[in-house]
Amino acid sequence: MAHILVFGAGGIGAVYIYIFMKAGATVTAVCRSNYEAVKRDGFTIHSVRLGNVHCQPNVVRTIAEAASNCSEPWDFLVICNKSFPGSSPSISDVIRPAVGPSTGIVLLQNGIAIEEELAAAFPENPILSGVVYVPATQIRPGVIDCGTRSNNLLEIGTYPAPAPQSHKRAAEEIASLIREGGADAVVYDDVQPRRWSKLIVNASWNPITALSQCNIMDFRDSSPGAIDFVRAVMLEIVRVAQAVGIEGIDEASAETLLRSFLTRTDTKEPSMLQDVRKGQPFEIEAIVGNTVRVAKAHGVEVPLLDALYVLGKGLLEAQEKYRR
Amino acid sequence: MAHILVFGAGGIGAVYIYIFMKAGATVTAVCRSNYEAVKRDGFTIHSVRLGNVHCQPNVVRTIAEAASNCSEPWDFLVICNKSFPGSSPSISDVIRPAVGPSTGIVLLQNGIAIEEELAAAFPENPILSGVVYVPATQIRPGVIDCGTRSNNLLEIGTYPAPAPQSHKRAAEEIASLIREGGADAVVYDDVQPRRWSKLIVNASWNPITALSQCNIMDFRDSSPGAIDFVRAVMLEIVRVAQAVGIEGIDEASAETLLRSFLTRTDTKEPSMLQDVRKGQPFEIEAIVGNTVRVAKAHGVEVPLLDALYVLGKGLLEAQEKYRR
Repeated sequence: MAHILVFGAGGIGAVYIYIFMKAGATVTAVCRSNYEAVKRDGFTIHSVRLGNVHCQPNVVRTIAEAASNCSEPWDFLVICNKSFPGSSPSISDVIRPAVGPSTGIVLLQNGIAIEEELAAAFPENPILSGVVYVPATQIRPGVIDCGTRSNNLLEIGTYPAPAPQSHKRAAEEIASLIREGGADAVVYDDVQPRRWSKLIVNASWNPITALSQCNIMDFRDSSPGAIDFVRAVMLEIVRVAQAVGIEGIDEASAETLLRSFLTRTDTKEPSMLQDVRKGQPFEIEAIVGNTVRVAKAHGVEVPLLDALYVLGKGLLEAQEKYRR
Repeated sequence: MAHILVFGAGGIGAVYIYIFMKAGATVTAVCRSNYEAVKRDGFTIHSVRLGNVHCQPNVVRTIAEAASNCSEPWDFLVICNKSFPGSSPSISDVIRPAVGPSTGIVLLQNGIAIEEELAAAFPENPILSGVVYVPATQIRPGVIDCGTRSNNLLEIGTYPAPAPQSHKRAAEEIASLIREGGADAVVYDDVQPRRWSKLIVNASWNPITALSQCNIMDFRDSSPGAIDFVRAVMLEIVRVAQAVGIEGIDEASAETLLRSFLTRTDTKEPSMLQDVRKGQPFEIEAIVGNTVRVAKAHGVEVPLLDALYVLGKGLLEAQEKYRR
């Protein structure tokens, strides 16, 4: 029976906790703001794909508490919280007490270049990089709404792509668990093209909607040039991906992703806009900042991403000042 | 004795009402949101330059009311409200009842290309284009705070620069009134270079602070790339000005304007940021939209201004939706 620790039990975390438990794993959830609610009532999930379901994992407040309560090492430590590169303490230091010699470290987070720090800190452990497409929002503590779409796909692979067979097997193992739990998972020998594909959507719509405070449909309709601007940002991301040598990312794939959003009728807000509305920190560094830094390292000019990054950093600063 | 109608009696309008009255003019103010307060208590202005002063103009609610109360034509109709090109009814239609055969129409507004509509609607009247540097904010109805700086300068000239001598004399006349009222006014044979000089500041800091919700100092400090971004936006404006054939606008003048802001210690917020904080419409069309349109007409690429424009239009859309 797999033995799993989930760090960051918000919307995405809760959905995977349910999936792992349904697959028969023992699951411990590190909960912060929703600890009391989840300790008392567990998670309730409203999902077209999974149904209206409930689960009650073990709940702890911290990684240290999880580690001190447990004698055997975790098979997987699944990180579902937001990624804040450069924050202190680092994510490696935070999770270290719960990482055993062969614990698979699974990142279910947005952004790019977020795996390097963990791979450097835990060079022997499988680092599994996952791209999530679950539209999950925690509407109140412990209660998750997955919206009106039925997709529930995880794309996953080792980081880096060349990895020992034991790491490749760990990727297959967690994908199997997810499929047993009722969702979809696809293992890629190199998952980075999938991460960059999602980045085309994330590094464009997320900061654009956060700064304009419009959801996608409202931004689309706000000026005649709105869509051309989104496309231009997406094409900058494509050029960075191509400079890095990511396979299968081109103008046509960006156009397909753009069209898929423009024809949608749901009003779901990108996560960064949700965070801005709640006055919470948002992932400008992992999603836009890392892209800008990778672009610079490869000599690619990205003036529009630069603009979104500095405006986003300003908005983050304003939010933090307002909270202080 | 000059006979003046001031349309748009917010912070800037109130300061000029005081100045004109001090110079001996009879002044009628068209007040909207602050009508009751100004009718009762007049305007109170706190200014390093003018002192803590008070004035009580005639007050009306609309242009039509002003016109119906008055038998002789106005010498000057001074427009101090925000400029919203493309709004309906047009500013020309709004002011038409108060425009006599020789009334000088004075625009004390930000932005560029805001004079054309009035010049077309009133081809015989002097159209006087003014660039204002008064840091005036209406802190509550009828009460104006001019901050800690003592400058109170108006730069003014005819639109277009080639104009009949009677129009040139009207510019001199209103400048004289302003100087008699205790402020500074400089008449330019061609005022457009001054308008573009102010645009370098307005079309950069205004949308940048509105979108990031940072004041200037906080934005400067929010990321290492922040200032380079502001400079890059300013240089786009310089390139548009040069394409239009505006004299004396170059990279050096932009750098001087940038430096003048970076060394300031006051925390005064640009007007567009103030408007966003209050949930009010802001001048994205007159300041950024018109610049983008002039750039396109002259074949100048302005990707960063395009970005600020579409993001600003989105923010305006989001605000309006929120108000509905």
